[in-house]
Amino acid sequence: MVDAAAQPVITLLTDYGLADGFVGVLHGVIARICPAARVIDLSHGIAPQDVGAGAAVLAQALQYMPVGVHVAIVDPTVGSERRAVALRTADGRTLVGPDNGLLWPAVEASGGVERAVEISRSRWRLEPFAATFHGRDLFAPVAAHLAGGEGIERAGEPLDPERLVRLSVRHPQHEDGSLLATVVHTDHFGNVQLGAGGGELSVLGVRPGDLLCVEPEAGTPQTATCARAFSDVPPGTLLVFEDSARRLALAVNRGNAAASLRVRSGERVRLRPKGRP
Amino acid sequence: MVDAAAQPVITLLTDYGLADGFVGVLHGVIARICPAARVIDLSHGIAPQDVGAGAAVLAQALQYMPVGVHVAIVDPTVGSERRAVALRTADGRTLVGPDNGLLWPAVEASGGVERAVEISRSRWRLEPFAATFHGRDLFAPVAAHLAGGEGIERAGEPLDPERLVRLSVRHPQHEDGSLLATVVHTDHFGNVQLGAGGGELSVLGVRPGDLLCVEPEAGTPQTATCARAFSDVPPGTLLVFEDSARRLALAVNRGNAAASLRVRSGERVRLRPKGRP
Amino acid sequence: MVDAAAQPVITLLTDYGLADGFVGVLHGVIARICPAARVIDLSHGIAPQDVGAGAAVLAQALQYMPVGVHVAIVDPTVGSERRAVALRTADGRTLVGPDNGLLWPAVEASGGVERAVEISRSRWRLEPFAATFHGRDLFAPVAAHLAGGEGIERAGEPLDPERLVRLSVRHPQHEDGSLLATVVHTDHFGNVQLGAGGGELSVLGVRPGDLLCVEPEAGTPQTATCARAFSDVPPGTLLVFEDSARRLALAVNRGNAAASLRVRSGERVRLRPKGRP
Repeated sequence: MVDAAAQPVITLLTDYGLADGFVGVLHGVIARICPAARVIDLSHGIAPQDVGAGAAVLAQALQYMPVGVHVAIVDPTVGSERRAVALRTADGRTLVGPDNGLLWPAVEASGGVERAVEISRSRWRLEPFAATFHGRDLFAPVAAHLAGGEGIERAGEPLDPERLVRLSVRHPQHEDGSLLATVVHTDHFGNVQLGAGGGELSVLGVRPGDLLCVEPEAGTPQTATCARAFSDVPPGTLLVFEDSARRLALAVNRGNAAASLRVRSGERVRLRPKGRP
Repeated sequence: MVDAAAQPVITLLTDYGLADGFVGVLHGVIARICPAARVIDLSHGIAPQDVGAGAAVLAQALQYMPVGVHVAIVDPTVGSERRAVALRTADGRTLVGPDNGLLWPAVEASGGVERAVEISRSRWRLEPFAATFHGRDLFAPVAAHLAGGEGIERAGEPLDPERLVRLSVRHPQHEDGSLLATVVHTDHFGNVQLGAGGGELSVLGVRPGDLLCVEPEAGTPQTATCARAFSDVPPGTLLVFEDSARRLALAVNRGNAAASLRVRSGERVRLRPKGRP
Repeated sequence: MVDAAAQPVITLLTDYGLADGFVGVLHGVIARICPAARVIDLSHGIAPQDVGAGAAVLAQALQYMPVGVHVAIVDPTVGSERRAVALRTADGRTLVGPDNGLLWPAVEASGGVERAVEISRSRWRLEPFAATFHGRDLFAPVAAHLAGGEGIERAGEPLDPERLVRLSVRHPQHEDGSLLATVVHTDHFGNVQLGAGGGELSVLGVRPGDLLCVEPEAGTPQTATCARAFSDVPPGTLLVFEDSARRLALAVNRGNAAASLRVRSGERVRLRPKGRP
């Protein structure tokens, strides 16, 4: 019987997509260095180079992952002077990726950084080292060595955690009884996650069944119903709800809210209560 | 050496897509509860909320899977009063998912239900419990506990199998020597699977090489050749064949039949023999 | 603790996509025959029936995979008289797939063939045997038996390696100081890999910072900058670089070169040096 509890875990989150061999190559590199590791693909479908969406997906998923080595790669400035890092968090996880803000929300969700290491010139880099595929030549081998039991301090040079790049997040704003929030992420179903907690609804004084006016930055305003789940409203109806990450979100029951509202990540949406129907 | 034969198997089929972290989170939840489980992704690309297509893919694939716990989630009414169930089949498999018909063809392919349990309020639910992500908070943890050896009766409340929701299927109809069948599923290659067995061709009196008129509900009629494999006809040619699930299907050699015929799942297609060319 | 080093490895590369259950069925078939095998999905996103792109992805990724059984299926003539083969390479790998050229670049990258076996009528085929899904009924079971330790000579009939189908590749041509090369593959980011080594740039006398005119067969000529990495040029700028497979490639920093140039695999592109800016 496998002593699976003893198996180290590596999770992978990238914007590589699955059309090419990039993700398979990460798995191969890891399997060659640390064959005992169990690799979980958290997601490879982050929109290309959307650091904010990748950061949100990682931070929200991490609590559901076994404690292990968590690699994240959304890296529009690969090959530049941006740092690459390995971080030990307060709750015992190890994060590996570019130092461009991608890891920051996960750090905050993990109780902060206890130890940071700059790994750009790690002894575990593969050679020849390609300027455009650090996932293969840097992040995967470093993660595999760490999963295999090597100490994080051996991964590179010590780095003051205060110097880590933090993701700038636009916080929700209350204005004249309305809420202005940023689209963090739109998912496969067209559900739109906003950069605001579900609790903002009660701040607005809105309860299930109430109506709101949803005003996208560049689309047509629509009426939404405050609800608990998709099926609380008729098919085709826009709803505002607290999603499974406890964030404020927009959806259309059996439809696609992102398409209907024509919103994309980074854009802003205003929610204005309209009272009971 | 891994005693792999002793490893419990969990298979996953959903309409979650791979763009987000949803599927990765299922893997993480399972790995935390039952690290010994081997997880096989049967498919996460079922068209959003297409219960019929998900049911067909599951039922046709199951015989090729090791006996284990088989989770299926295509769940347009998540958060409503629809039941969630765990089922033990006559051939020893365990099915877990919403009770909306999705599991029914798999039940039939597995010799019927021996035991059914309503799991909506299972002791193994994760808390806080989200109304919109039962995959994470209900189905994955229940599957992981069952894979770990817990008895199915501990998963929830007993349910009379007679009360399970059955998928309504439109059976093929013979009319005036033609066959009217429903599109069950169109695949990645544009091959169109119909809700009829391959044996219907001989009922129509059609043999390899014969021509048929293919009349989609809403598209233009086209001529197809009865064949055994794609390459039996010239590139660009429409063919009617028995597919690998022994179902009647339409394809275009080196082309895309679904696009050419403009058909989608749930629509009907009439096949009318035209004799030898 | 898992003695993971003893785990046999099977890698899979197909054009099946992930929308259907095809890939999950391959995993299930393998797990039933050789439960100890670790399966790595190299890619299932090869463009449907693009044998050349599949061959390139396989050959370039193989060196990063553990030595094992490597299955590749891009098979437009499945069901015809094309051979199916298992090959033992000089560096100890086993390749399994259709004999249509798909495996050939991987063979060359692996030091050549030591032993070839025609497996079309292998004793390990599943029955009933479908004419249109050899992945399930032939390639996966043969790979699983080989991973489980069976000798390759038992997989079928001996085949003279000289009879293997070789992929015809259009080599790059130098004409009047310009380079004419074929598009091998366009990836998820829109990066365009050409059928020419990165060394061709120095043959052209081009150094980082130099400008080139890029002339697609059917698109509008554009100016590109020779660079080492995406971020060496401003966002939106076309660059020519040596990619991570050491091939000549085109990209747009934070953009999509394939879309911008309107090129597809198999088309030709001319690169003409323009000197320093």
